[in-house]
Amino acid sequence: MESYAPTAKTKLGRYPVRGVFDKAQVHAILDEGFLCHVGFIVGGQPFVIPTGYARSGERIYIHGSAASRMLRTLDAGVDVCVTVTLLDGLVLARSGFHHSMNYRSVVVLGKARLVTDPQEKIVALRCFTNHIVPGRWDTIRPPTEQELKATSVLALELSEVSAKMRSGPPIDDEEDYALPVWAGVVPVHTEFGPPVADPRALPGIKFEYSR
Amino acid sequence: MESYAPTAKTKLGRYPVRGVFDKAQVHAILDEGFLCHVGFIVGGQPFVIPTGYARSGERIYIHGSAASRMLRTLDAGVDVCVTVTLLDGLVLARSGFHHSMNYRSVVVLGKARLVTDPQEKIVALRCFTNHIVPGRWDTIRPPTEQELKATSVLALELSEVSAKMRSGPPIDDEEDYALPVWAGVVPVHTEFGPPVADPRALPGIKFEYSR
Repeated sequence: MESYAPTAKTKLGRYPVRGVFDKAQVHAILDEGFLCHVGFIVGGQPFVIPTGYARSGERIYIHGSAASRMLRTLDAGVDVCVTVTLLDGLVLARSGFHHSMNYRSVVVLGKARLVTDPQEKIVALRCFTNHIVPGRWDTIRPPTEQELKATSVLALELSEVSAKMRSGPPIDDEEDYALPVWAGVVPVHTEFGPPVADPRALPGIKFEYSR
Repeated sequence: MESYAPTAKTKLGRYPVRGVFDKAQVHAILDEGFLCHVGFIVGGQPFVIPTGYARSGERIYIHGSAASRMLRTLDAGVDVCVTVTLLDGLVLARSGFHHSMNYRSVVVLGKARLVTDPQEKIVALRCFTNHIVPGRWDTIRPPTEQELKATSVLALELSEVSAKMRSGPPIDDEEDYALPVWAGVVPVHTEFGPPVADPRALPGIKFEYSR
């Protein structure tokens, strides 16, 4: 079982028991999510921006448009925190205090690098596309030189990484189990509806979504 | 139509056309989500932590455990960015460049305040609980003094706020509409499974989840 090395920063938090550093579990969470939340600082103010991403081995590529203006001013990259969270359930306890959520999340810290090499941008675009629909890259028009110039991608190595998760029923105070209150978990899933074709789609092209 | 006043910070970003400042739309997004991502700075490093929240009028309450250690050291509160994002669809275009996501997100900037008044903590706990299951607060055991002491809540006023959203089909380059590629939107929904009762639940207590 390969793991990420915990650091002072990734050990932050009050529930160390929920911390997970196993690479396979981290990868699974990153591969299941669609959106990450990128945190960065501009003039002392933290910003948290949702954006698309995809994993490539021990690196993630991040749609960089929101952060790219700032990044371009920094040669050495910029400190970021990228967080991916999957909500798995609403945990309903017998007291308000013990209500909780079942979730899996990954936090990646590091210096994001602005991708400038056109070849690496193609790799990133392929990752983004195949992350959403496996195999789709081979079915669409390849990028033009102009598009690659306009594509803003950040790269972040998976080095300072931790995951956290909670699962299972509520943990109530012992004396509360006698209360006549329903308690348990409402499972939460991400569901995909039937694909809605573009009004300008050509007739006769079938598509079924699976991932 | 009441709106939040745009500021230099909330106007940040490359798609001003997607910016929304209408209060009703902002409230609707905040009321639909379960998790927010809280961004804050510790020693120059941005952190982005997922946590529960709930809206109360023009204020949000945030489960503060992750950020509270830092907050306790700061009398005047701390600059945070709280972001709530709802994913609505995967937007599949005819080129990688025009792939996108349909989403609604709210970004709240401001100084978070650590809630210390026990009465306000009760208000916050009630908000959290009823946000997850409407009306649940009146069915569960009220908080004890001990629990209120151990409850860590942040309050953040809805003052510097903006929303962003994308909806609808992909926008492709004109010449690409002739390509034999399926394009359109895969709708994404949050679905709730049948509630799973706690193994220690008393018999005969029914529960159906709706929100």
